[in-house]
Amino acid sequence: MKITGTFIDEISHDIPHQNWGREEWDRDFGYMKAIGIDTVILIRSGYRRFITYPSAYLQGVLGCYSPPVDLLEQFLELADKHALQFYFGLYDSGQYWDTGNMQHEIDANRYVIDEVWQRYGHYKSFAGWYLSMEISRKTKGATAAFHILGKQCKEISGGLPTFISPWIDGKKAVLASSSQLSKTDAISLQEHEAEWGEIFSGIQGAVDAVAFQDGHIDYHELPAFFEVNKKLADRFGLQCWTNAESFDRDMPIRFLPIKFEKLRLKLEAARLAGYDKAITFEFSHFMSPQSAYLQAGHLYNRYKEYIERLG
Amino acid sequence: MKITGTFIDEISHDIPHQNWGREEWDRDFGYMKAIGIDTVILIRSGYRRFITYPSAYLQGVLGCYSPPVDLLEQFLELADKHALQFYFGLYDSGQYWDTGNMQHEIDANRYVIDEVWQRYGHYKSFAGWYLSMEISRKTKGATAAFHILGKQCKEISGGLPTFISPWIDGKKAVLASSSQLSKTDAISLQEHEAEWGEIFSGIQGAVDAVAFQDGHIDYHELPAFFEVNKKLADRFGLQCWTNAESFDRDMPIRFLPIKFEKLRLKLEAARLAGYDKAITFEFSHFMSPQSAYLQAGHLYNRYKEYIERLG
Amino acid sequence: MKITGTFIDEISHDIPHQNWGREEWDRDFGYMKAIGIDTVILIRSGYRRFITYPSAYLQGVLGCYSPPVDLLEQFLELADKHALQFYFGLYDSGQYWDTGNMQHEIDANRYVIDEVWQRYGHYKSFAGWYLSMEISRKTKGATAAFHILGKQCKEISGGLPTFISPWIDGKKAVLASSSQLSKTDAISLQEHEAEWGEIFSGIQGAVDAVAFQDGHIDYHELPAFFEVNKKLADRFGLQCWTNAESFDRDMPIRFLPIKFEKLRLKLEAARLAGYDKAITFEFSHFMSPQSAYLQAGHLYNRYKEYIERLG
Repeated sequence: MKITGTFIDEISHDIPHQNWGREEWDRDFGYMKAIGIDTVILIRSGYRRFITYPSAYLQGVLGCYSPPVDLLEQFLELADKHALQFYFGLYDSGQYWDTGNMQHEIDANRYVIDEVWQRYGHYKSFAGWYLSMEISRKTKGATAAFHILGKQCKEISGGLPTFISPWIDGKKAVLASSSQLSKTDAISLQEHEAEWGEIFSGIQGAVDAVAFQDGHIDYHELPAFFEVNKKLADRFGLQCWTNAESFDRDMPIRFLPIKFEKLRLKLEAARLAGYDKAITFEFSHFMSPQSAYLQAGHLYNRYKEYIERLG
Repeated sequence: MKITGTFIDEISHDIPHQNWGREEWDRDFGYMKAIGIDTVILIRSGYRRFITYPSAYLQGVLGCYSPPVDLLEQFLELADKHALQFYFGLYDSGQYWDTGNMQHEIDANRYVIDEVWQRYGHYKSFAGWYLSMEISRKTKGATAAFHILGKQCKEISGGLPTFISPWIDGKKAVLASSSQLSKTDAISLQEHEAEWGEIFSGIQGAVDAVAFQDGHIDYHELPAFFEVNKKLADRFGLQCWTNAESFDRDMPIRFLPIKFEKLRLKLEAARLAGYDKAITFEFSHFMSPQSAYLQAGHLYNRYKEYIERLG
Repeated sequence: MKITGTFIDEISHDIPHQNWGREEWDRDFGYMKAIGIDTVILIRSGYRRFITYPSAYLQGVLGCYSPPVDLLEQFLELADKHALQFYFGLYDSGQYWDTGNMQHEIDANRYVIDEVWQRYGHYKSFAGWYLSMEISRKTKGATAAFHILGKQCKEISGGLPTFISPWIDGKKAVLASSSQLSKTDAISLQEHEAEWGEIFSGIQGAVDAVAFQDGHIDYHELPAFFEVNKKLADRFGLQCWTNAESFDRDMPIRFLPIKFEKLRLKLEAARLAGYDKAITFEFSHFMSPQSAYLQAGHLYNRYKEYIERLG
């Protein structure tokens, strides 16, 4: 299973910034292409007061800071240049993380979607939308928000595809800033299936693909969960992607690049389950030859050897 | 607002050591000069048993370890060579952190100041003193200690300037080893003004400049706090510097280089408030092209572009 | 005191993987030789489901994953090539960490020792065994396990030497994933001596050397603890090695390379106590010129200067 997409994490919750300029990003898109990546996904267009493009609405109404560079323009231009497909990630106000209430996300993104499509929709590489709210089964209230926002994205853009990337409420689902390495009461496979069945049914028609994050369960649990995910996705007419995390959740430093063997186990499990596509969070910190984490460059080499053997 | 000074953090509380030799430090002072830095500040001459120069007093009486290199001599020689101004940071016994009592710091530094001025005071670059005890408004008892030690520094050295670098008791004021990312009951602006007024009044005549650490409050709170700081400093005849932290307090890894956009927000706020000087904690780990954290080299480049645009 | 051995931490509890291939390891063994290292120790042949060599037993019975590379073969071939002595570290099922019960380790390793000696015992570099269970004085129940497994290793291999590397239950003995930097109730020297006397007496004849980890006590406590360790080792006919940790336990990032001054203090203490050998945990992350942690390359240079001065 080859990785053909990656998030771009320029507005990050928890990964320190690399301070790259346009030159480094141009080169990185080249490194991506060289291993078969055809899709880049802006993980979010803003988070709380930090945003990726100058926005009258976000700056004027929500008090966001004026960004030093129009990153959205830059990524679209580079995606055009490298013939990559670009997915736009919605704005994250942070309110949802604090309160569990999605109303702020709906309100803000109603403006953002319009504004962005109007100003950036003409780029050839603008290929889809990423509904950036990260949920697990416990946040079923999000279903309605996904439905509303997914519909708006598709309608304004002539039906461009949308996707989500939730997490499995497994034993490694703890906050990055916590010192715990796992939680004890992990979700059972049965609960997972029942609750995601409900969620998938509610987002039908508004969401085209679901890319579960693959890092919250143990490696030997992957086959069972992946089989259920694929079955559910098929039942509700969704594409089934995997979000293959290329950082290591098992280490006290949060986070450095993953051990290749672990990434391979996860990709193999997705392949065996018949998944449609693999994307990763994310190439530029954890797999890039120019990453500040030099382990990433070695992971790039190990991954390249792996896909060359696959042929 | 250009950064014209940096701490040197060779005896660190919480930043892992880079294991540089003289050659690396020589080169680093060159990198500093190239972006307009004219001042280097030894953050502390010792911390608990680790010290920067061979000291009969600290080794004999306090049981400090014999340092492998005389770092103080090395930094003064290199500061002479590169025409940088050198500030000497007092010894930190660690007792103050453990007990809240400043008496140990006063006792130890009475000797250290004499010893250091006698042996190193002749270097052309020896330009001032840094009273290295870090306080916030809650540790007002420190006022007397600053007064005593500041006076001694100035008297022995013919009036060389002294400064302090306290922190604002804001919502990010948590220990580096804690897994919390912020604390809930942040200080209000009014309390800040009232309590720092008292402190400033107590250190008048013994301290010439105050460089508040800029990382403990949120970015949108900077203008209000900076305005108060400047007003207070003016009232008590102190220079108002900013200690622009070049590491990122918002990330689970403690600490890697800051995102340039954040540094820029902080420098702009200091400029708007009419601050006198900007220093940083610190160049060599977080902004240097030869830092072990490669994000630092990119921050150097982004910062250079920024000051070139300022002209 | 020169470091003449290093662990190889390819199956790690807590140090993120560097994703090296054979080429990087070949080069690293060269870097080791260049500073006088003659011994490499595979820290463990497996941990829970991750293993270093294809094992019918571990994969078939314990459900371990099929390793992408036979690392054991690779390390033995490279040790042969570079004329290094190779010690094999036993399998760690993880059960002991979870339950305190050593029975799983005994059961699994009875097979592993046979399997490994049969398939890899012919390599010229295969020079000894590392009993990889890490214990402190609180886990005296481990004595019987060390006895059983040590005996088996020696008997099957014609008496090749065995060693253990326990930790001192000192004030820095806290888990890597914890946010505490030290614990309050540290072991006293008297307890240490009494309890390790019992343990050493129980492992006589089955274990040839003991290499205490040197990072759990404070630097000024080293001489006293090292003197006791040497006295005890002499009394029970064990070789006394030091496991000089080359990572820094005093920093919030867990873990980056140690400050050279600290490593030097620890090596000097071992020399003064008349220790027989110094090994390190571990060269490739924390001292190697090609480590992803660039501080490690500088530590290599500082260490080289140090041993050149020693002559």
